[in-house]
Amino acid sequence: MKFKTLDWVDGALHMLDQRLLPNKVENVVLHTFEEVAESIKNLTVRGAPAIGVAAAYGMALAANRMELTEEEFSDEMERAGAVLRNARPTAVNLAWAVNRMLDVMEENGAIPLPEMRKFAIREAIKIHHEDASMCSKIGTNGAALLSDGMTILTHCNAGALATAGMGTALAVIYAAASQGKKLKVYADETRPVLQGARLTMWELMQEGIDATLITDNTAASVFAAGKIDAVIVGADRIAANGDVANKIGTYNVAVLAAHHGVPFYVAAPRSTFDMSLSDGSKIPIEERSGDEVVQIGGSRLAPANAKTFTPAFDVTPIQLITAIVSDEGVMPGGRA
Amino acid sequence: MKFKTLDWVDGALHMLDQRLLPNKVENVVLHTFEEVAESIKNLTVRGAPAIGVAAAYGMALAANRMELTEEEFSDEMERAGAVLRNARPTAVNLAWAVNRMLDVMEENGAIPLPEMRKFAIREAIKIHHEDASMCSKIGTNGAALLSDGMTILTHCNAGALATAGMGTALAVIYAAASQGKKLKVYADETRPVLQGARLTMWELMQEGIDATLITDNTAASVFAAGKIDAVIVGADRIAANGDVANKIGTYNVAVLAAHHGVPFYVAAPRSTFDMSLSDGSKIPIEERSGDEVVQIGGSRLAPANAKTFTPAFDVTPIQLITAIVSDEGVMPGGRA
Repeated sequence: MKFKTLDWVDGALHMLDQRLLPNKVENVVLHTFEEVAESIKNLTVRGAPAIGVAAAYGMALAANRMELTEEEFSDEMERAGAVLRNARPTAVNLAWAVNRMLDVMEENGAIPLPEMRKFAIREAIKIHHEDASMCSKIGTNGAALLSDGMTILTHCNAGALATAGMGTALAVIYAAASQGKKLKVYADETRPVLQGARLTMWELMQEGIDATLITDNTAASVFAAGKIDAVIVGADRIAANGDVANKIGTYNVAVLAAHHGVPFYVAAPRSTFDMSLSDGSKIPIEERSGDEVVQIGGSRLAPANAKTFTPAFDVTPIQLITAIVSDEGVMPGGRA
Repeated sequence: MKFKTLDWVDGALHMLDQRLLPNKVENVVLHTFEEVAESIKNLTVRGAPAIGVAAAYGMALAANRMELTEEEFSDEMERAGAVLRNARPTAVNLAWAVNRMLDVMEENGAIPLPEMRKFAIREAIKIHHEDASMCSKIGTNGAALLSDGMTILTHCNAGALATAGMGTALAVIYAAASQGKKLKVYADETRPVLQGARLTMWELMQEGIDATLITDNTAASVFAAGKIDAVIVGADRIAANGDVANKIGTYNVAVLAAHHGVPFYVAAPRSTFDMSLSDGSKIPIEERSGDEVVQIGGSRLAPANAKTFTPAFDVTPIQLITAIVSDEGVMPGGRA
């Protein structure tokens, strides 16, 4: 990648400030776990895998606070973990990464403090590398599904900006491109938060991929014109039967893909499967503030007191999915 | 209606300034045909039927310019007609209304000038009333399709703001509501120009209709939840075989409606049919400036130099349409 979403440099976490994209490309440099928690809370970093890696580094920063004594260490790690987990309570990867850092430090509690500080950094870097490796495997597994000359539609941002590696859905595109396949991409702008316009377009253009921005409304006529050969999207959570919760509008694209006979692929790490949920109807759907719909920047778009309905995610049934690509392989869906 | 898109008061045209909606409700008062042409050009008024009526009043204002002599009259009317037609050259209703005013004045050329001035005003008011009557007939014809308690999805603005009467698609809803049927409406915000958020929500709220604003992306999950009983949209042009060109995203909604087994109705005046075009593939589709996608208000949403594809309309094949409601009746479509 020509940019780094997260980078560990000289004992500090460098983080690309995604709030400023695409207008400004700037890193923030974080030295404390409190700063990391704040950056997660205020969306400097977003995307479940990227948040998890950031939190792991947050724990490493907590362990390396120099005024900390051997006696205080364990309590302070618990406190840092709680602060980081609370930054976005619903992000599964965040709690997972924090707990892994706490567990390995507890298991290795006999290590003297100076060694423990280095150990915590090594473990965070390991989590970072595992995430990058997971992305690469998704890319390689998915690239086999794409041929030279294809045009791909994607929705939201399941790219390098959402992970500490090359992304999930976009990893498939990057991997295919690195194999010399020439691809075109249409990116849905993805209202209301416009991750497609702001983030996906930015990273595809950074990587030299031929990308075209469309409104979500335009996707249907692009399908009708026969321009789309495949759809690839990410996933926020996948139920045991393969139903996929992802950014609002994903299900819309799945219906369009089925109607036009175009393959619909989901790319996500194996860890996205939640085997405790039998099907998609069990996945809780977060409802966002109506402000995201009624205004953009300073501009008000709708009447005061307009009633809104603003679910953040929708559920695509496995029947509309051609295949789910993960780091473990390619699982056929209901349209295979 | 609790508001008037266009109103003829004391020899001047009062026009609701739609550029300010929904934040401000203000009329502009126009005294010359040049002012009317400018108000069409700068989108103070929009919607094909409303533009046509505004242009007719523009011709009446031209005829009533008092410094005009009997000798100059005919040439000046031609000049006013040309200026008005050029305000939005692709608007079919605009040219139609201007030509009708010119034709009736020419046919009645023997009338003395003071009488001709009054005659021109009467003819413009007649065009206004015909438009309102067309809207009412569409409303009555369509209302029979809606039952008490239904929830309707609409896209873009085919309402009173787009006509000089109660609208086309929204006329059906207003007529059903006036029959005592309790309806709920979901309004797609309709990116990129947001006519749904800005105009449809405003007028439905003015008229006391229970309206909920959603992003275009949210429509699919609202269908999936079984919340939508019928879709009603307007039309910009209808081919001889019944294929419908309408605001971008309409075809998307038609695919969703078919997938979920929900009736999809188009409401438009009979004059929207263009019998010279055998099917929808012959309808020319205007492409808009990419600026509409990459920025809203002052906020930039996408990277500089992002490639965009921004058709203003799409085509819904008659196979996906349950019925077309016009002022002449209800024509069954391919999903009837």
